Parts: sequence; structure tokens; C-alpha cells
Amino acid sequence: MFVLVNLKTYPCDPIAIAEAVRDVNDTTDARLAVAPQAAHIERVAETGVETWAQHVDPIEYGSNTGHTLAETAADAGAVGTLINHSERRLKLADIDGALRAAERSDLETIVCANNPTQVGAAAALEPDAVAVEPPELIGTGTPVSQADPDIVRDAVEAAETVDPDVAVLCGAGISTGDDVVSASDLGTEGVLLASGVAKADDPTAALESLVEPL
Amino acid sequence: MFVLVNLKTYPCDPIAIAEAVRDVNDTTDARLAVAPQAAHIERVAETGVETWAQHVDPIEYGSNTGHTLAETAADAGAVGTLINHSERRLKLADIDGALRAAERSDLETIVCANNPTQVGAAAALEPDAVAVEPPELIGTGTPVSQADPDIVRDAVEAAETVDPDVAVLCGAGISTGDDVVSASDLGTEGVLLASGVAKADDPTAALESLVEPL
Amino acid sequence: MFVLVNLKTYPCDPIAIAEAVRDVNDTTDARLAVAPQAAHIERVAETGVETWAQHVDPIEYGSNTGHTLAETAADAGAVGTLINHSERRLKLADIDGALRAAERSDLETIVCANNPTQVGAAAALEPDAVAVEPPELIGTGTPVSQADPDIVRDAVEAAETVDPDVAVLCGAGISTGDDVVSASDLGTEGVLLASGVAKADDPTAALESLVEPL
Amino acid sequence: MFVLVNLKTYPCDPIAIAEAVRDVNDTTDARLAVAPQAAHIERVAETGVETWAQHVDPIEYGSNTGHTLAETAADAGAVGTLINHSERRLKLADIDGALRAAERSDLETIVCANNPTQVGAAAALEPDAVAVEPPELIGTGTPVSQADPDIVRDAVEAAETVDPDVAVLCGAGISTGDDVVSASDLGTEGVLLASGVAKADDPTAALESLVEPL
Repeated sequence: MFVLVNLKTYPCDPIAIAEAVRDVNDTTDARLAVAPQAAHIERVAETGVETWAQHVDPIEYGSNTGHTLAETAADAGAVGTLINHSERRLKLADIDGALRAAERSDLETIVCANNPTQVGAAAALEPDAVAVEPPELIGTGTPVSQADPDIVRDAVEAAETVDPDVAVLCGAGISTGDDVVSASDLGTEGVLLASGVAKADDPTAALESLVEPL
Repeated sequence: MFVLVNLKTYPCDPIAIAEAVRDVNDTTDARLAVAPQAAHIERVAETGVETWAQHVDPIEYGSNTGHTLAETAADAGAVGTLINHSERRLKLADIDGALRAAERSDLETIVCANNPTQVGAAAALEPDAVAVEPPELIGTGTPVSQADPDIVRDAVEAAETVDPDVAVLCGAGISTGDDVVSASDLGTEGVLLASGVAKADDPTAALESLVEPL
Repeated sequence: MFVLVNLKTYPCDPIAIAEAVRDVNDTTDARLAVAPQAAHIERVAETGVETWAQHVDPIEYGSNTGHTLAETAADAGAVGTLINHSERRLKLADIDGALRAAERSDLETIVCANNPTQVGAAAALEPDAVAVEPPELIGTGTPVSQADPDIVRDAVEAAETVDPDVAVLCGAGISTGDDVVSASDLGTEGVLLASGVAKADDPTAALESLVEPL
Repeated sequence: MFVLVNLKTYPCDPIAIAEAVRDVNDTTDARLAVAPQAAHIERVAETGVETWAQHVDPIEYGSNTGHTLAETAADAGAVGTLINHSERRLKLADIDGALRAAERSDLETIVCANNPTQVGAAAALEPDAVAVEPPELIGTGTPVSQADPDIVRDAVEAAETVDPDVAVLCGAGISTGDDVVSASDLGTEGVLLASGVAKADDPTAALESLVEPL
């Protein structure tokens, strides 16, 4: 299972969490990574943890003041990027553009989507993975795999129908090892999580408990 | 073949063009329709022509000042709607929302997209049809079926792979009957056109010449 | 006082409300108008009521599929338009563009804004009027003139400082005649309201009660 | 005069340019600064140059995946930020929100705008400065101070009328020391420039020639 810890713009110490993710990664067969803010990518990557961007724009080198360039994220040490997170929704044409920008920079890609229908559409754009995150569950602590397992099953099926090479991840409300196991049982290859680790008093313990049942 | 004449916000007489479309429709096996501005839907529909909306928003009845409600378009006489036209791009989640809104109102749907990859994604959202319109050809008078027939072929294949029930239309640069025939030969079931009819000195003659070879 | 009834995309009968607004307008010194959806402007205007658009785009005649053209709103019978309503926020450059489009079509303009600071900015764009509508009060039934009279006073002062020719209106939560009187006492020249009339069992009675104390 | 070098997403070496800006700053009475991409702020600031962000979002700490937090830009070493650059236009309410976010973090602010009318509106939002950048001149090498000096004069007057404490800068097409002198003569207190330095073979020489006539 792939576990991606999204630090959003939380008031956390990105380096401390990066080190916790790196250290727990060394103790498990699961693959753990962290997605800090753009301004923190370089320092986070220097810890040795697998580092992801939270977003890249559908642009190339040029006149794009205030935008996030895939090449810059990659140069700073990112190896992948989220695209179309529910807090950073993009136009269909711009998801396509951001994916092509990420490919140019050899960034692995996860496109987020609200529901199985949108997961199918996202899979058709040829990302490495898609993530289903029902907006109503984000930040609730109620995992989608428990609140509505059919959404996860349908998302896995929708992606499979469109392109069997696209992995499916599961986000929204994941906070325990049981949630990760449920997500795996439903056919996903990973989870996105955020506050469960980033806001934990002890991120290392939170991560250990997450991967323990795997 | 389905021929949809998009009046955009051109300074044309929507009623005169609607009547021309209606009259030529009666002389051919092709299916002709017209897409006026929202404020013109009702009067255009009263001519008896098949009438489409140019856009509907991903909303329901409620507090949505300045938005276009699918129910209102349908009540005014529209039987279908364009969604995600290149001049009115939507976020992926909003294309999904607009499609569900259109379904609720029994509006037929065409989702526009730039290229075959995006056509596949649009097809996964379960519209009635998708239209491939490379932005660089819109308004040029160079039909995509001639400038780059592979884009059309690839779009037909992309939609077929994702969902064989979704029809493919072809837009951008269509202006002659030969263009319509080429589009048909490439596997599409219709065309979107705009200035070729809406800006013609004689819209009836322009339409007759379009459907003549069919 | 100017009283503008915004019908949003409510499931109301726009003609019945238009007739109520027209009839009550004939019994009072207040100026009453109604803002229906774009597709209803023409039929609403035909009742003889003063008709406003809910939004116009920063565009000219041309290739703008799915947009609202000021000229079309004016041709259909609108004499004014809201711009930047809290449910249809625009970029600063587009508020400017929409105002210039409305001027070209001789539409009167009201630019909405959240707070006194934004009201000052809106006033600098040379609209006919600005409206202060704290988003947290919209649809609550608690009038801004009561919940926070300082916001209204500060908005009047902010507009006065920037351009004394720009009238200030007050929106959000207005539903009774007393609210209208309070708004007037605080220095505004009108009110925006919506559900209080559009969702009333008896819109005529609701309007009569609104203008009675004036 | 304040000279802000915007590195956009150019394929330049941000550190080399930062060092050039820092070194030339030490030789002149002008105040020189550089605005790198978010991911480069920290390393650029470590050179000792005055560092600005290109954009901040209207957000606080929290769930804002893929956004730019003012606090993070400040922590990384930025002392100011552009807002509403023509390549990153914001809604009016979001310019207000981004300014308040920047104030919270003690970032100095420059709000960009297309024309004198929008400059007046921007000044009403209480930034430290506004910059007038006619979009049609950006990247042309034709300075606005030469192509249309009245735009600059009108912008200075518009800001002065609304708030005399707000400085006016001038962008678009600045590339020589004469352009900077003209901008100063027209009443501005600084210039924004980009390609003239960022794409120069010798950024130090380009900067020296810019500040030499001051």
C-alpha cells in the first residue's frame, strides 16, 4: 500500500513530519511519502523522504507569475504530484495539461476526484493513479471505506473499465490502520491522508499505527 | 448526421437563423438544431426549430444569482445543451454536475473537449455525445477533419473504448458540405458549427449547401 | 428608496412576482424592480415592471459561447444589471469589463461587495451604485442594518470618500419594512432582497409591507 | 526608486540573478528586489537579497491543498508579495483576502492592475502599493511610460484620489534606465520588470544599466 501524507497548509513542522514518514517507511513494506507546500519541497526532500507536490499548473517555462511549474517541483526534489485535489479543483483541459506537464518532468501523478464517475474520467486522462475523495467526508475522521464502501468499489471498477493500468487510491477520513486495511480490501492500492498524521501529537506513533496491520 | 448551429454571442438575428435551420431541416434526412443565447431560447424554440442551450451550470433550484439553470433552459424550450465548450470551460467536477443537472431536466448533452484524451474523459462522464474541437482551429475555416483527420479518428476511438454508447461529434472549422461528409467518413455522428451559418449573408443557402451532399 | 427583488434561480413564477412588483410600484414613492434569470428577462420586461439582469459578462459581440452579453440583456428589456453578486464573484479586471459592457448598453449598474473596503474598491470602478452584502448574512433573515449597522455606515463612508456620486445599497437579510427604514436611516439609497419576496406565499403582501413605512 | 525583478517561471538561475540583484543594490540609492517562484523563496532569500513572493492566496492556516500561504512565504524569507499580477488575476474579494493575509504576515504588498480605473479600485483595498501594467505591453519591450504616458499619469492620479498613501509603480515593457527615469518623472515610485533582467545574458550589466541614470 502507498500512504501519502498531505500537509496542506497546516501549521505543522514539515521537517519533523517528513522525518517521521521517512523513519516509519524504513520499518514497513508499505510505501510512505509526504506532500508539503511548494515552498517546503526542497527542505523536505533533503530529509530523504519520498516527496510529492500538492499541485502543478498546466504550464511550461515562461510568463506564468504566481504559478507552480512541474519542472521546479521536480528540481526541488519532488517525485510525484497530486492534481485536482478537492481543495484545488481544475478545469478538465487543465487536468490534462497538468498531467502532461508532470510527465515532462517525470513526476508520478495522482488525480483526485469526487465520485466513481469522475474517477473514470480522470483515469481516461492517463495518470499513474486516481484517488476517490468524497468531499463530504474530507476531514471528518469517518473513512470513505466505512461510510460508503460502494463508492470505493465503484471507483475501482470505473478506473478498471477505462484503463486497467491506472491504480486507485482512497482518500477522505482515513485515520487508522483498520481504515487502510479496509481500503486495501476494497481494491485500492493506497490512501491519502492528512490531519490524522499532520495534526497528531505524535506523528511517528500515528504512522506506525497506520501501517502496523499491513 | 446531426448539425448544431451555435449562435454564440454573434450580432445575428437568432429568429431568422432559427427559421432557416427549421426550414432546411424539413428538406433533409440530417437533423438540424440551433443553440442561441439563454435569453433567446424561448423565442427561438417558438419557431419550432430544435433548440439547444449553450451552457448549463452544475446547480439546482436555489441561491445561484447569475447562473444558468438546466430546468429553466428546458422550460424555455431547449431539448439539449452544450457543456464545457472551449469558450466556457468547466472544472471536471462541474462538468459532472452540469451533466447531472441536464439529465434531471431531460436535456440531451454534448460535452466539448480539445483532444482525443479529453474526449475519452468526457465520455466517461456519461453524456449523450462528446465533440472534439481543437481550440487552434475554431473560427479558422479550416475543418479539423481536413487539417488533422487523425484527431477525429482518435477521438472516435477514445470514446468507443470508454463507452460505445457515446456519440462523437466534430467541431472547429466546419463550413462546407464536404467538411460534413469528411466528418461522417471519419466516424462522427454530427458536427458543431457557428460562423459558417451565423455570419452567412444567406443562412438558408449556407445550410442547404452543408446538407446537400448527405 | 430603490427596492430590487432578486429572483436568483428560485423555483418561483417570475411573471407573477413581476406583476406584483409592478403593481406595488404604482402605489408607492419607492422605486421597485425585479431581477429574473437571463432566460426570463424578456417575458418579465413585457409585464411593464422595471427589469434587471443578475449578471453580465465582460465581453462584446463575438465568440463567447455560454456567456451573458449586456447588449442581449438590454435588447430583451433589462434596464440595469447586478455585477459581482456574492453568488457570482468576478475578477477585478472582469468587474471593470462588465461595467464597461453595461455602459455600452445603457444598463444601470450595481456592483456587490462583501464589506466596506471592497465597497470602496467597487465605487472606484465607476458603477451607478454599490451594494454591501456581508456573505454570512445572506439568506439568514437577519438584516445587516440590524446585525451590524457599522458595516452599512462604513460602506456609505467608503463609497463617499472614493466617489460621492456612487449610491450605496444594502443587501443581505432584508425582509421587513423596518429593515428598509433602517437601511435608509444608515444612509443607503436602496436595498437588495430575494427570498423575502420570491419565496413569500403572497409576494404582493410582502412587498406592500416592505414599502408601507416609507 | 524601487525595482522589482519578477522571475516568473522563466528557465533562469534564480540564485545567480538574486546575487546580481543583491550586488547591484549595494552600489545604488535605488532599492532592488527579486520575486522568485514559491519553491525558490528560501534559497533566494538566503543570498541576502530582498525577496518577494509572486502571489499569496486569500487563506489562513488550514485545509488548502495546493495553495500559497502568506505565512509560509514570510517564514521562507519573503518580505513582500505581488497580488493580482496580470498572469494571476484574482476576484475582487480574493484580492482583499490576500491583502489581509499578507498584512497578518507583515508582507509588503503590491497589487497589479490593467488601467487607471482598476488602479483606483486596487488602491481602495489599502495595499502598500499598486502597479499599472497594461496587458498589451507586457513582454513587448515597449515601456508603458513611452507607449502611453497618460496611462501612467492617470494611474498616479487615480491612486492619489483614492488614497494618497498608496505608492504607484509601473510595469510592462520596462527594460532600460531611461524607462525607469521616465517612470519616475511620471510620478511613480518604482518599476516591475521581468525578461529584461531575467533573460539577459548578463543580469548584472542589465541591472547596472537600469539604475545608472538614477
